[in-house]
Amino acid sequence: MSQHNSIFFTPGPAALFPTVEDHYREAFRQNLGSISHRSSTFRKIYQHTVEQLRELLNIPTSHAILFTGSATEIWERVLMNTVEHESFHLVNGSFSKKFFEFSKELHKFANAFQKPFGEGFDASEITVPEYAELICCTANETSSGVQMRASEIHKLKKANKNKFVIVDMVSSAPYTNLDYSLVDSAMFSVQKAFGMPAGLGVWIANEAMLTKSEQIKKNEGIVGTYHSLPSLWENYLSYETPETPNVMAIYVLGKVAEDLNKIGIENIRKDTDKKASMLYDFAKKSDQFDIFVENESHRSATVVVLNCKDLAGELIDRLKNQTGMVVGAGYGKMKETQIRIANFPAVDVNQVQTLIDNLKK
Amino acid sequence: MSQHNSIFFTPGPAALFPTVEDHYREAFRQNLGSISHRSSTFRKIYQHTVEQLRELLNIPTSHAILFTGSATEIWERVLMNTVEHESFHLVNGSFSKKFFEFSKELHKFANAFQKPFGEGFDASEITVPEYAELICCTANETSSGVQMRASEIHKLKKANKNKFVIVDMVSSAPYTNLDYSLVDSAMFSVQKAFGMPAGLGVWIANEAMLTKSEQIKKNEGIVGTYHSLPSLWENYLSYETPETPNVMAIYVLGKVAEDLNKIGIENIRKDTDKKASMLYDFAKKSDQFDIFVENESHRSATVVVLNCKDLAGELIDRLKNQTGMVVGAGYGKMKETQIRIANFPAVDVNQVQTLIDNLKK
Repeated sequence: MSQHNSIFFTPGPAALFPTVEDHYREAFRQNLGSISHRSSTFRKIYQHTVEQLRELLNIPTSHAILFTGSATEIWERVLMNTVEHESFHLVNGSFSKKFFEFSKELHKFANAFQKPFGEGFDASEITVPEYAELICCTANETSSGVQMRASEIHKLKKANKNKFVIVDMVSSAPYTNLDYSLVDSAMFSVQKAFGMPAGLGVWIANEAMLTKSEQIKKNEGIVGTYHSLPSLWENYLSYETPETPNVMAIYVLGKVAEDLNKIGIENIRKDTDKKASMLYDFAKKSDQFDIFVENESHRSATVVVLNCKDLAGELIDRLKNQTGMVVGAGYGKMKETQIRIANFPAVDVNQVQTLIDNLKK
Repeated sequence: MSQHNSIFFTPGPAALFPTVEDHYREAFRQNLGSISHRSSTFRKIYQHTVEQLRELLNIPTSHAILFTGSATEIWERVLMNTVEHESFHLVNGSFSKKFFEFSKELHKFANAFQKPFGEGFDASEITVPEYAELICCTANETSSGVQMRASEIHKLKKANKNKFVIVDMVSSAPYTNLDYSLVDSAMFSVQKAFGMPAGLGVWIANEAMLTKSEQIKKNEGIVGTYHSLPSLWENYLSYETPETPNVMAIYVLGKVAEDLNKIGIENIRKDTDKKASMLYDFAKKSDQFDIFVENESHRSATVVVLNCKDLAGELIDRLKNQTGMVVGAGYGKMKETQIRIANFPAVDVNQVQTLIDNLKK
C-alpha cells in the first residue's frame, strides 16, 4: 500500500485534520506566502486565529496568544522570561524531563518531583519548593500516555497562588479543559491534535507573566531578544509578530480551530472519550495487549499506550504493510515492547474501530 | 484585479518561486505533515536539502547546515553561542541595527561601526575592535538596498583571521558568492530569494564556531537549550533536528534549491545582474525616480531602492490596482518617499520589463 493511503495514529506528527490540505490550497490562492507580516491582511489573520482559539479553548482576554517556531521553543522562552532563580517540574517521562533539563541549561535552580515512567501526579501529593517561581505541569506525557487531569492542575494552583503554573498541553489540546483563572500559561504545537504540519508553537500567557519578565529584565536578567515575552506581547497588541512568522500555519490554525468550533468542543471531548474507551476496553479484553498506565485516572485520553506481547516493531510494520494504518512505536527504551496510539480529532470512531479490528488479527 | 493575479516585487515575503506550490502539493501527497523527524524519510529529506544547498552556494563540508524558525532567530543564536564578551557590527540600516541591538539585549559588549542609511562598507575603512569575537556583516541591507560585496567581506576576514565572520544574507542568498574558507557562518530565511512561504531559517556554521560554543558552555556561559550550536550540530550529524521542525519547508527548500541548480547558479547571478541593470538604468533616465544608493559599488543587485518624486504610497496603490504588480514601500521613515523592488529569481526579465513600462506611465 502506497504511503499516501496511510492512516496515521502516530502521536505527533500525526494524521492531518481532513480540511488542512484545502486550507493550505486556499492560503496559496490568497498569496499568503507573499504578504507582509506588517500588513492589515496579516493582522486580520492573526486576530481570526486568536478569536477561534479563544472560543475553542475558552481563553479569556487576560491571556495573550503568541506564536513561536515550536512548543520546544516555549519551554525555553517561559523559563527565560518568568524564572529569575527557581523552577519546579513534575517529571514522569521524556518530555517533562527535557523541560526540567532546559531549566538547568539556562542556569536556573531546577527542582523536580520525579515519578517512574507510566505514573502520574495528583495535587495532594505535591509539595512545591518555597522559592519556586514556576510550576511546570504536563497535561499529557506523549512518551508514556500519562495525563495530569485539569482538576488536579487547578488544585495545585489554588494551593500555590503566588507561583506561576504552566501547562504543557502539546498532545492534549484542545481536549484538556483548563480554567485560565487558575492557569497562568499553557502551550502546544500544531502537529498533534490540531492535525497540521509542524512548524508553529502556540504560547498562551497572562499579564502577570509579562510583568514578571519586565521585572527580570529590569533586574539585569536576560529574557532573550525578539521572542522575549515583552517583545512578543508588544507585537501581539497590534496582532503582529516580532519576526516574519510562519504566516501560512497561523492562517491554517485559525481555519482548523474554526472547523473544530463548528463541531463544538464538547462534541470533540465526548468523541475523544468514546474513542479512548474503545481502545482501552479492547486492550483489557485482549490477550495480546495490556494497558500500560495502571492508574485509571492517570490514563491519557489522547495518547493510548499499550504493552505488546509480541515485538512492537514487527506488529507496527505488519499493520502498516497490510492495512496502511500507522501506529506509533513505544518511546525510547519502550520501542520494542509498546505501541502508542494517538486519539486526536483527525481520526474518527470508524477508523478507530477498524484499527481495533486489525489489531485483533 | 483580484489578489491572486498579483505579481510581487516586494522584498520579503516575496513572490513565490513558480514551482513552490507544486512542491507543497507533492509534500502533502507524500504525507510529509505526518512523518516523524526521527524517521529515515525525514533524514533523507534533510540530507537532500543539504546536498542541494551545498551545490548551489558552494558550501564545503567543514560547515554544517542547520534549521531554525527564522533568520531573526539565528541573530540571537549566533550571539549566544559564539560571543563570550564582545561582538562587532557593521550597521547601516534597520536590520543590521536589530542584530546589533540583540547583542546588547543579551548583555554582550556590542561595538558598532555605523553609517547613515543608504551608505555601505568597504573593508579598508573598517577597524575591528581588538577584543571583538564576532564580526557581523550584512550582505544586503533589505531596508536600504545597500550591499556589502563578497570580496570586501573576504578582505575583512583576511585582516581579522582570529575573529569569526558571519554574513547575514537574508535578502541576497543565493546571489552572494561567498568563499566559505573566509566566512565562518552565514544565514538566510526562505521567504526572500528562495521564494517560499516564511517559517524557516537556514544557519550555515563551521566547526570552529561549534568549538567556541562548547568552550563558552564549559566556562559556565549560557548558550541556550535545544537550539544551542552543540545541540543543533549533534542532531545534524544524523540529519535530524532537536525539535520537530518545519518538515514541509525543509523538503520544499531542497526542491527549490534543486530547481535553481538545474538553472545553474551562474545563470541566476547573470540574470539577477541583468534585471538589476534594467531597473537602475530606467531610474537613471527617469524624471520620476532617482537611485537612492549613490555609490555604485554599494548598490544592491537584489533589492533596488528608488526615491520617488511623487508620494510612494499613492504610486504603490495605483500600480497594484491598475496592473496587479506589487512593489515594496520604503522602510520606516522612507515609507512615503521610496519604493523597494525585489529582484529575486522568482521574477523574470519580461516581468521586470513590464514593471518598468508600468512605472513609466
